[in-house]
Amino acid sequence: VSRAAELQNYLERTRRLIDQTLERHLPAAETEPSRLHEAIRYAVLGGGKRIRPMLACAAAQACGADPFPLLRALSAVELIHTYSLVHDDLPAIDNDDLRRGRKTVHVVYGEAMAILVGDALLTEAFAWLAAPIDGVPPARQLRAVAVVAAAADSRGMIGGQVADIEASGAANLPPQSTSAVPSLDVVRFIHKNKTGQLITASVLLGGLLSGASDDQLKTLEGYGRAIGLAFQIVDDLLDQEENEQTLGKTAGKDLAQGKLTYPAVVGAEQARREAAQLLDTAVESAGMIPGSVNFLPDLARYICARRN
Amino acid sequence: VSRAAELQNYLERTRRLIDQTLERHLPAAETEPSRLHEAIRYAVLGGGKRIRPMLACAAAQACGADPFPLLRALSAVELIHTYSLVHDDLPAIDNDDLRRGRKTVHVVYGEAMAILVGDALLTEAFAWLAAPIDGVPPARQLRAVAVVAAAADSRGMIGGQVADIEASGAANLPPQSTSAVPSLDVVRFIHKNKTGQLITASVLLGGLLSGASDDQLKTLEGYGRAIGLAFQIVDDLLDQEENEQTLGKTAGKDLAQGKLTYPAVVGAEQARREAAQLLDTAVESAGMIPGSVNFLPDLARYICARRN
Repeated sequence: VSRAAELQNYLERTRRLIDQTLERHLPAAETEPSRLHEAIRYAVLGGGKRIRPMLACAAAQACGADPFPLLRALSAVELIHTYSLVHDDLPAIDNDDLRRGRKTVHVVYGEAMAILVGDALLTEAFAWLAAPIDGVPPARQLRAVAVVAAAADSRGMIGGQVADIEASGAANLPPQSTSAVPSLDVVRFIHKNKTGQLITASVLLGGLLSGASDDQLKTLEGYGRAIGLAFQIVDDLLDQEENEQTLGKTAGKDLAQGKLTYPAVVGAEQARREAAQLLDTAVESAGMIPGSVNFLPDLARYICARRN
Repeated sequence: VSRAAELQNYLERTRRLIDQTLERHLPAAETEPSRLHEAIRYAVLGGGKRIRPMLACAAAQACGADPFPLLRALSAVELIHTYSLVHDDLPAIDNDDLRRGRKTVHVVYGEAMAILVGDALLTEAFAWLAAPIDGVPPARQLRAVAVVAAAADSRGMIGGQVADIEASGAANLPPQSTSAVPSLDVVRFIHKNKTGQLITASVLLGGLLSGASDDQLKTLEGYGRAIGLAFQIVDDLLDQEENEQTLGKTAGKDLAQGKLTYPAVVGAEQARREAAQLLDTAVESAGMIPGSVNFLPDLARYICARRN
């Protein structure tokens, strides 16, 4: 089989495993209060690219681990990602009613429920991360909990989200009125934190649970940082270029909301160039992980080439 | 010194230690994004009885531990409690603008910020729980993370909150129109989950981090369940009886919102009787923990006798 077919196969298989893990380990829709659990399942099981748990899985495999016993813990990062989407879509924040091609949680279940669904998913993620795993030393697992928590907290993902909201206000001013350099610093801060940290933590999670050495963890971190930033630049470019049909969410929204995006600050061409450089860095780092099953370089290319 | 003075002394000392721990370990207000960190500190450091970390502390001491090295982890439950208040107070949920005698977070910082402050506190709690502690076996600490996560998740605290919201709608019907028995089941479900689970987990957290035996953990769980339910009954009674001045939050709100409360379902007298019985159970359980420093019985009495 060709490398492309092999990758396609790997992506589909891994995605299916992650979807099954989410489906099995989320509380059943009948669990009381059933409307809450129905809403939780609606939020998580309605699609999504599963890029974070895929990266975690690929990192674990590249470090020589069998990913099967780790799947629940590795999928926890998808719960955190989903909670952040549910809360970001709320009327008080981005006020979005379309996500992953479907109505957002607050549109279907109401605002109060959407807030609590997000809270529940974030909490559930830590329950999944802390459930004992045969063969994984508890000290390692505890470190993984700490890494994920740090990536998602007020100095990480939430800090990025707040900076994004604050910058949107500022970005409503005409672009000429502000100097480009502070904007670039701000957009870098936003991307690094809002998207980059959880993506990096996902890669590290895979490494930590598979017993990676400190050197390997450093390499994985470099890979995660590069691909995290590249991912967000590609996202910004897609929002600018694509239509709703392909994207599955409201397109052109960033611009309409006056969001500070990479292409808006440096121009689309420069943004594309930087994404390509980051991809090179990621592929190079990934090449240093010695595992015989190493899909990290392919996954990096897949993330940068995606159309939605 | 009299037992009462000794208890007073213990409560003040422990509360001060917990307040210092919160103050020191929360990110400084200058940390970027500074408005987020200012809001986080406003939410947590504005007072509060600190009952959950006090219980955790007392449980750890009753099981023979020095609480000092455990303080950060034990205080994590206060972050979870505070996040739940910040989210419950939101316009989309209870729409309350007074809490702990001050304006609520969304009134001061806006709704978007209040949502993200809650998210950050919940995440930070798990960072605190997972930070390595000298002398505590990682397996124990991991178990503590799992216990706290389970107590706070959709089958625990959040499940109770959703049931509470759903029951408020139903309770707006005239009381005669519904049979008392299902209401009692519902109010028990709400109390057990909305308040009881995190209180029980706080007590267990103290036990787990101090190396309590399985028997001791069972006893602590019985204590936590009893005091958790008693706490909520007392809370309901206070809301009915007291005025805002004493309570530091909007009083009579439960009734105004048609909330299903214990005294509303079984009458104030029966509610008082049940609280007294639960206190007896808690004191009895606490007496079975052999530590030479055991303030668990006193803490139970303090919780049931409080006026705010």
